[in-house]
Amino acid sequence: VALTAPTALLLSIGSELLLGETVDINAAWLGRELAALGVDLRGVRQIPDDRGVIAGAFAAGLAEHDLVLATGGLGPTHDDLTRGGLADALGEELFEDEGLAGALRDRFGGDAWMPASNLRQAQLIASAKPLDNPIGSAPGWWVEREGRFVALMPGVPAEMQLMWIAQVAPRLQGKLGLRPLAMRTVKTFGLGESAVAERLGDLLEAPGESIDAGIYARDDGVHLRFSTRLDASRLEDPVRRAISALGDDVYGTDAETLPRLALAALQRGGASTLASLESGTDGALLAILAAHQAAEGEARYRGGALLVDGERPQAPAAADAVLTVRLAAQGALGRSRVAVDLAAPGMGFDTRVARIHGSGQQRPRRAAFAALDLVRRAGITTEGGA
Amino acid sequence: VALTAPTALLLSIGSELLLGETVDINAAWLGRELAALGVDLRGVRQIPDDRGVIAGAFAAGLAEHDLVLATGGLGPTHDDLTRGGLADALGEELFEDEGLAGALRDRFGGDAWMPASNLRQAQLIASAKPLDNPIGSAPGWWVEREGRFVALMPGVPAEMQLMWIAQVAPRLQGKLGLRPLAMRTVKTFGLGESAVAERLGDLLEAPGESIDAGIYARDDGVHLRFSTRLDASRLEDPVRRAISALGDDVYGTDAETLPRLALAALQRGGASTLASLESGTDGALLAILAAHQAAEGEARYRGGALLVDGERPQAPAAADAVLTVRLAAQGALGRSRVAVDLAAPGMGFDTRVARIHGSGQQRPRRAAFAALDLVRRAGITTEGGA
Repeated sequence: VALTAPTALLLSIGSELLLGETVDINAAWLGRELAALGVDLRGVRQIPDDRGVIAGAFAAGLAEHDLVLATGGLGPTHDDLTRGGLADALGEELFEDEGLAGALRDRFGGDAWMPASNLRQAQLIASAKPLDNPIGSAPGWWVEREGRFVALMPGVPAEMQLMWIAQVAPRLQGKLGLRPLAMRTVKTFGLGESAVAERLGDLLEAPGESIDAGIYARDDGVHLRFSTRLDASRLEDPVRRAISALGDDVYGTDAETLPRLALAALQRGGASTLASLESGTDGALLAILAAHQAAEGEARYRGGALLVDGERPQAPAAADAVLTVRLAAQGALGRSRVAVDLAAPGMGFDTRVARIHGSGQQRPRRAAFAALDLVRRAGITTEGGA
Repeated sequence: VALTAPTALLLSIGSELLLGETVDINAAWLGRELAALGVDLRGVRQIPDDRGVIAGAFAAGLAEHDLVLATGGLGPTHDDLTRGGLADALGEELFEDEGLAGALRDRFGGDAWMPASNLRQAQLIASAKPLDNPIGSAPGWWVEREGRFVALMPGVPAEMQLMWIAQVAPRLQGKLGLRPLAMRTVKTFGLGESAVAERLGDLLEAPGESIDAGIYARDDGVHLRFSTRLDASRLEDPVRRAISALGDDVYGTDAETLPRLALAALQRGGASTLASLESGTDGALLAILAAHQAAEGEARYRGGALLVDGERPQAPAAADAVLTVRLAAQGALGRSRVAVDLAAPGMGFDTRVARIHGSGQQRPRRAAFAALDLVRRAGITTEGGA
């Protein structure tokens, strides 16, 4: 099997993107999906609701790539021009598909209820097959022409994701004979990017044959990423070497997160629930734990209070453990000092200090992650001593 | 003065964008800035760390547009290729600038402390002037060639934003003779998009000469936007007509937000501080209020607790007022019921119910905004009755 992956271009269509009214979260989501599937996404283009520009972008994409994906511009109004743009690029005519028109009428409960403009969403071209949209009125399109593929999907993230997962991704796997990109991430906290690189020696430059390596500074620490289009087992060696070089500064791999590990350490210590107190962090700890909870569908974080200078701290909610973080105010640059206290059965501690790097905007989240990392480390120490 | 705005292309450079490791929030931020400044952003391209691709994108952008902006790829490592790509596109040679090299050495506290690779960040071409980066090591570039302009900025949002505000935007205003786009937003809560459109009659279709109108459904309500490149005072008439047609369902204009209005209503009623309780909302109310507080630099929100079924609610923090929101679990689609209670001096209420629309992902935030809107409305009623 060839090691070269099929290539793709993504068109994110809509003037609201270029005006900054909407952040294009679809691009990153599809980027991750395409990488995992083994398609090499070579570019993303945000373009306006302009039929000529859209047609030109489809034509240019199809001249260079195996696959062109598009999101947005499938609505019922006059500035939804994705269908027309693709028709122009392919030299085909739009026509109203009777099946789609009937389905739309049914969706609206009959002719009388459907705005006439919605019939735009029943348009097709000869080489397109409709893609079902179970949670919205805009059907997608799947087009095959001369060994190349186009998928049009709605811009609403939930609709796009459902259509991708159920209909587009399976078709691509079937048609393109894909080699998935295997990827492993090693996550560290407490070291700077250059210190991590130094401890790794030549691992980043020479991670192994047909393996790519990258290093990324994030609010939740410095991450290493190893990837290959060959067998995933090749990645075990560089991951093992990285963990061995970095020791306890590695907190996990892949989908592991500091909130999850901190809550797991507390659980092992006997604390099922957590509340938080913070100052100087703009509620970052509370926001991170609430987002973690929402993502995991848990009910172990019970809430947090924001401490105000000169007032007596008060436990914010009934919980087994209370984590307190105070970020000292400082100038716009350089290192900051974070003081962390943990009241928890068996593993609590008073005022440990962490130092974090980063600009003013990054510091609150980095301070919160530093606190969660100290909880994780306290869990290791406790177990080591037991 | 011509009404046609100068056009621009934005290149977002970095393979991590195409792999979905990073969401390109810079594009939307710059999109808003460019629109306000009077530059017509015609496209955004996310491209990989590939010098040939980068050079091709700069060349294509400069052939078509007055301005090409780029973010990312200015770091010190071998895959930071934006400088080289632009040099290739312009047919110029990279050289090491002594002034930049000296400034970098100073930043690192002397030669011995600076990794040699950082000298890449001291590279320039003859037609580029460096742009200072007070909070990071990567200087930007400002390039003028044959009446066209290029600005290279770092990918780290805080560094990019500071460089844009202090150095790039002022240069553009000076060089391009810009006509700013005047924009007004009218924000409503409690009505669906089609109900808002119906109450407005023909205002969206005919907002006035040289005025554009748009309608957008957001988690914090349906927003109307009016814009013009002529005098800003032209927008007063459509804004006044919208407010008059929509009455109390309008909560504000432009930068007004529901958290700010709810806190202001409480303040007028005598409650300086607020705490929250919520269930079924994944901490959305807490997250919105913490983010508001961080953005405004306030200390009036004191924290929130997440209610767990079967446990007794407990005030999460010492505060004058407590807002409670409960979102009933429901299927993936359709309307949901939100129950809201407010304990507050003079304006508290028991269990008011709001109904919200939206998919599963949207509901928690919409429920939180519905609660804040009920607080805002309670403030109006109280004052009306006083």
